[in-house]
Parts: sequence; structure tokens; C-alpha cells
Amino acid sequence: MIQIPRGTQDILPGEVEKWQKLEEIARNICTNYQYQEIRTPIFESTELFLRGVGDTTDIVQKEMYSFEDRGGRGLTLRPEGTASVVRSFVGNKMHGNANQPVKLFYTGPMFRYERPQKGRFRQFVQFGVEALGSQNPAMDAEVVSLAMTIYKQLGLKDVKLVINSLGDTESRLAHKEALTNHFAPRIGEFCGDCQSRLEKNPLRILDCKKDRDHELMKTAPSILDYLNTESKEYFEKVLAFLDVMEIPYEVDPTLVRGLDYYNHTAFEIMSTAEGFGAITTLCGGGRYNGLVQDLGGPETPGIGFAFSIERALAALEAEGVTLVDEPKIDAYFIAMGQEAVNTAVGIVHAGRAEGLSLEMDYLDRKMKAQFKAADRLHAKHIVIIGEDELAKGVAVMKDQTSGEQEEVALENLIKTLKA
Amino acid sequence: MIQIPRGTQDILPGEVEKWQKLEEIARNICTNYQYQEIRTPIFESTELFLRGVGDTTDIVQKEMYSFEDRGGRGLTLRPEGTASVVRSFVGNKMHGNANQPVKLFYTGPMFRYERPQKGRFRQFVQFGVEALGSQNPAMDAEVVSLAMTIYKQLGLKDVKLVINSLGDTESRLAHKEALTNHFAPRIGEFCGDCQSRLEKNPLRILDCKKDRDHELMKTAPSILDYLNTESKEYFEKVLAFLDVMEIPYEVDPTLVRGLDYYNHTAFEIMSTAEGFGAITTLCGGGRYNGLVQDLGGPETPGIGFAFSIERALAALEAEGVTLVDEPKIDAYFIAMGQEAVNTAVGIVHAGRAEGLSLEMDYLDRKMKAQFKAADRLHAKHIVIIGEDELAKGVAVMKDQTSGEQEEVALENLIKTLKA
Repeated sequence: MIQIPRGTQDILPGEVEKWQKLEEIARNICTNYQYQEIRTPIFESTELFLRGVGDTTDIVQKEMYSFEDRGGRGLTLRPEGTASVVRSFVGNKMHGNANQPVKLFYTGPMFRYERPQKGRFRQFVQFGVEALGSQNPAMDAEVVSLAMTIYKQLGLKDVKLVINSLGDTESRLAHKEALTNHFAPRIGEFCGDCQSRLEKNPLRILDCKKDRDHELMKTAPSILDYLNTESKEYFEKVLAFLDVMEIPYEVDPTLVRGLDYYNHTAFEIMSTAEGFGAITTLCGGGRYNGLVQDLGGPETPGIGFAFSIERALAALEAEGVTLVDEPKIDAYFIAMGQEAVNTAVGIVHAGRAEGLSLEMDYLDRKMKAQFKAADRLHAKHIVIIGEDELAKGVAVMKDQTSGEQEEVALENLIKTLKA
Repeated sequence: MIQIPRGTQDILPGEVEKWQKLEEIARNICTNYQYQEIRTPIFESTELFLRGVGDTTDIVQKEMYSFEDRGGRGLTLRPEGTASVVRSFVGNKMHGNANQPVKLFYTGPMFRYERPQKGRFRQFVQFGVEALGSQNPAMDAEVVSLAMTIYKQLGLKDVKLVINSLGDTESRLAHKEALTNHFAPRIGEFCGDCQSRLEKNPLRILDCKKDRDHELMKTAPSILDYLNTESKEYFEKVLAFLDVMEIPYEVDPTLVRGLDYYNHTAFEIMSTAEGFGAITTLCGGGRYNGLVQDLGGPETPGIGFAFSIERALAALEAEGVTLVDEPKIDAYFIAMGQEAVNTAVGIVHAGRAEGLSLEMDYLDRKMKAQFKAADRLHAKHIVIIGEDELAKGVAVMKDQTSGEQEEVALENLIKTLKA
């Protein structure tokens, strides 16, 4: 027996319907918000993620599925979606599209070689959006509201929006300097990763899992104290729009996104459901005004978010929200005798093509077993065609709710079932 | 600028809507036929495809994306869907499911390192079904009819069903012997591949692209002459069910599927549209009663098909079928002044959450440019909120079809737009 690869899972019937429903809800909301789908390849040039995710990140250093194809090209299974979308934006010159900003959503598998654990897979599915071409506080608020609306329509109640501003380049540089001065004298007390972060990107020290309890962490200078006037005003406008939309939020100055091209708005949505587990972040997003340029395009502002479908479903489970009802079928056909089977096959085929959800037996089971099969499928009707019925050109149609049964002429069966 | 990997493509807005529509149609039909979705990982143990596709096939020998993960596991991006579904069937012991047969569908990217050309990609998307657990001619006919119904509902007219039987093991062995005797005396005239096929699997000689014009090809013994009585009767019943369903077909004894575990029904659906190109096969399927056992499960019959979405869309284009209409949005909001923008942001947010498809400006454009943006999005209404309107607590709502405009109280806007 061949095993499924470690850290991956099959989504089977019984579970997959939740995925379908979640995706349908998220897609419909995106459509209402004028975000259009984009589908990029599962793998990209490794170079893309070195540049687009950052070569100092854990993702790039430890977690990528990289390989060479038969032509010697360095490829990597995408570990996240933003770099691919921006690569496509640049390559397809979408900055020249008539409709601006360009608002895109995507959904699909992502790959990270991490230690598998409850709720964490090596192949996981992200749903994300990117809005490119607008630097406007209303744009930031729209992206945040889109994420919140998805969770709300899924039926989640215990979610919390946490938001912060990383400011513009000037503000970030001032904050970076303050951070360097703060950590430098005692950097020897921090882990090796943090020591190399000090020079490259001290902001990422605040993200360190090993050193998070070090006393200097609590007293680290807050970005909010280093925002210049424009950055401060920008952030205030974003928050004002969230107020208008009646979306509650919590400002958390320690919420940072470590990549150099992130700026202004950064946000996360967390589950506050009891017993949801240690990792509570459901969704992360932020503004990345430098990324399009870093990947060879013209200067273009951008903002987006991504969430894991696995975590959204886990949050639904933690809150006891049921996303899908038991499916029902319109009718189960029971035919006795070869001629009746022939007739049933024809009617079932025609009915399905007209949109009816129908089933029949393919195992030559006895009548009793077929009745049981119909029950398991929650058939609304059972249609019985035996030799007597066939001779009269009718079928017996039994309503499984009322228990009533009637004879229906074969040529009227589909019409009757549709009514 | 970083290029997209060779042989892959982005599916962009404007094109992606066709994919969405096609998938929606195929999914709905599957639901009516009681096929449920299964999602398996993008990569599997390489071993799976060696055993489940066959180590003498071109796919396995030349076209797989195989690599080692950071733990040294031999993994391969799936080149097709059946092996993964059967691996999942076995691993999840679906032969014990209450509902039998187990009827599954899947859709997703597949990967083959082939020479890219028009309509052939290294990453392509397959939609497929597998029905496991029933050996019944009505099952075969159902699977064929499902494929045909999808093409019909897509709106394709120029499609042709070609069908054949490979018989049971006894029939296949008799045919194999006849083929060996037929080709052996002159096998020196055939290509190296065919020479090695002669011993392993002479049926695959009939599939050879290099030697297809050799005179021995035309006179090769036909499988139909070697079917034993049971196999012949089985095939006749399948064809009789297709007759009942009024699905036209063409029996082609040269249609073979080269893998050892294929038997009984084999079929292809081809486009007969003019100018569709050299490769006309849209869909291929067949019965594979030995595969579940080969992959470590109990003896279980199976049948399925798969088609490429790229080719289905190409066939639609060749026939000039339009799958999607130009999308329209319910309203475009034009707000003038900061306060009006605030108000618009709130109403747009609330309206979208109630299912309205709405848009507004995020680029601080002038009014005229916003009217143009509304036209490009085919807005049914334009809602204007200026300072005067705001003072009166109203908006001007313009019907873009009739050209009529009216004042609507702000608190009634969503209700009015929904009506």
C-alpha cells in the first residue's frame, strides 16, 4: 500500500463539501467587491521567491520545495501567493489595464516544508486577494473589510481584527534606527538569527519565537512613535473608514510584517474561540508598495491578504458552525428486470441532463438493499419500475416525506419530478 | 523581470471566467450524477506512478517532474489523476463505505514535462471522474454519458464518441498472443520502443506514433475478434444502454489503452470541429479492473475518464461557442468630498455584504473619469453623492439603461438597488 506524502491530506466527500461552500462564499464576496480571479502556476522560478518573499526569511531558507526540472531550470513549488500574482501583474503589464486599481483574488495549494502538526500541513490551501495600483486609505479599508466580511458570512463570531501601521519609508528608517540602538548593546543575549537580523532588518527581531520573552522585547520602541505626519494621517484615515463600516479593531503596535517592502497598513485576523489552539491567526495582510518595483515593474502600490482555508474550517469547527446541510437527491430509481433497467437508464440519463439529481443501482442489489441505498442518499422520491408498471407504461413514485405514492406515466416522470 | 516557467500559463481575468463557468457546469452535472469531489495532493510518492501509471509508459520514463524533498523522499508532481484517487481509495478503505459504488470526481493541475506547443502545456488542468466498486454495463454507460453530457451542456456540437472493448483478461491474453505472432516475424522493421513493447505489451505497438504507417499496423488482429462470450455480451450491453440514452457512438477496434490493467470498455471523445488542429482527442476513459489491487487494495472494478480543460475551451473556441456573458455590476458610487466619500464607503461596504455587486473610485479621479470607469464595468446604476446630496441625506441614482435619474434617501439606497 502506498502512503500519502507526509504533511499532506486528501479532502474526501463528507469533508470536501465544507471546502466547496467556503470557497463559494469567498468567491461571491470577491465578485461583489469587484475582485477577479487569477490562476498562476503551482511552481515558479526559484528566483521569484528569493526576491519576492525575501532571502532572509524562514520560508526561503528552510521551507521551500525547490528542484530542477529536466531542462535544469531551478523551480520552486509556491510557498505563498503574492509573489506569483505580482510576477504576473508585471509580466502581463497590468499597470496598463483600463480598470484601475487591479483587484485580484486567488485560491489554491501552497507548499512549505514545515514540521507537520495539528492544523499545519506541508501542502495547504490559501485564499488571498491583491489590490494593485491604489494608495488610498479607502483601499486599505476595503481590503480589510473584504476579509472581515468573508469571516462574517461564514458565520464566525469569535474573530478579532488587529491592525497597525508600519509607516512610509522615512518612518520605517527612523524606527529601524531606534530599534538598532535599542537592541545593539545587548544583542549577545539574543539568538543567532536575531543577531544577523540586527543589521539586515531589526524589525524581524520582534517576530522571533525564541527570544519573545526577553525583557528588551517589551520595551522596544513602538513604530507608532516614529510615524511621520503623512503616515500618521494615512493610518488615521484607514481607521476612520473602518469606523464608518462599523468594523471593530484593536491597534497593536507590535504587529509587524518583517519584509522590507511592507509599509503602512498591516493587519491580522485572529480567532478568539475557546479551545482553538495556540496559533490563533486566521488571516494576515498588509500594504507592500515596493514589491512591484522589486520584481521589475513600474512603481505601483499594492495591498492584500491571505488566509488558510484549513484554519478557517478549524475556526468554524471550534465555534460549532455548520456550513453545509445534508445533501438530498431528487429521486432514486429502482428497476426490476432487464427491460425495466433499460427504461430506467434512459430516464435517469435524461433527467440528470435536465438538472435533476438522480441515482440508481449498479450492483444488481435486491429491492430491499436498494431502498436502503435510497435512504442513505436522502432521496426525496423513490421511483419503482417493475414488469407490471412497464407493461402499463407507468412508474410508481413514492414521496419519501409524506409516504404517499402514485402512478406516473413514464413520459411524465421527469416533468413531475421537476415540479 | 522574472519570467513565468516554460510551458505554464497564467489564467487572467477575461479568460478565467470561462474556466469558472466550465468547472461550474461540470461540477453541477457530477452532482446530478451523484459523483462527489475528492482532492488529493499535488505531489505523491514517485512509487505510486511507477506502479499506477506503468514504468514502461512515456509519462513515467520521460515526462515526470520528480524530485526529493528536504527529508530525502522521492516525490513526483502528479502527471494524471487516477493513480492518486485509487491510492486514496485504498488508503481510506473506501471499499467499506456504505454507499457503493464509490463515485468521485476531481479537478486540478497535472504536470508533464513535454515539448510545449499550441494547446499543450507542462502544467494543464484535468477534470476527471472515477467510479469504483461496480462491474455493470450500466456503470460503463453512465460514465460515458456523464462525459458526453458535460460537452453537450457546454454547448459543443461537433463531438464524436469512439468506443471499443479490450475484453477481460482471457480475451486480452488471446489477443496479445495473436499480436505477438503478427508482429514478431518483422519486428526488426519497427522502432526500438516497439521492439521492446513486443514482449512486454504488444498492444502498445498499435499506439506508436513513429510506426503508425507500417503496413502490418493495418492488418493487425482486432481485439473484437478475440473477445470471449462474456466480454462480447458485456460490450453489447454497454452499447445497448448508450442506444437507450440516444448517445451516438462509433466502434473503433484500434482504440486501445496500453496499460495492463485496462479492460473492457475504452472510449475517447474527439472534436470534429473544423480547424481544431491535429490532436482531436478531448477526453479519454476506460475500465481498469486491476488497478485497485495493483495498488494494494482488495479486488475492485473501476472505470473513469479525464479531460483537459484547456482542450475543452479550445474546442469551444473552434466552434465559436461563448460560455460567459459580459459581467455587469449593480452600481458604481461616485462621491465628491471627504464626507461624501466616508458615506459612500459605508454604504458600499454594507451593500456588498448584502450581496450587491458594487464599486467606487480609489484613485481620487475626477467625476468624468469615474463615469468612464462605471461604463467599463457595465454598471446598471450610477449613484452620485455630492455635498448638496449629503446635506439633504440623499443620493442621485441614475439608471444606466433608461437614463432616468431619481433622488433616493441614503438609508433606502441598498433596498432600492436590491429591488
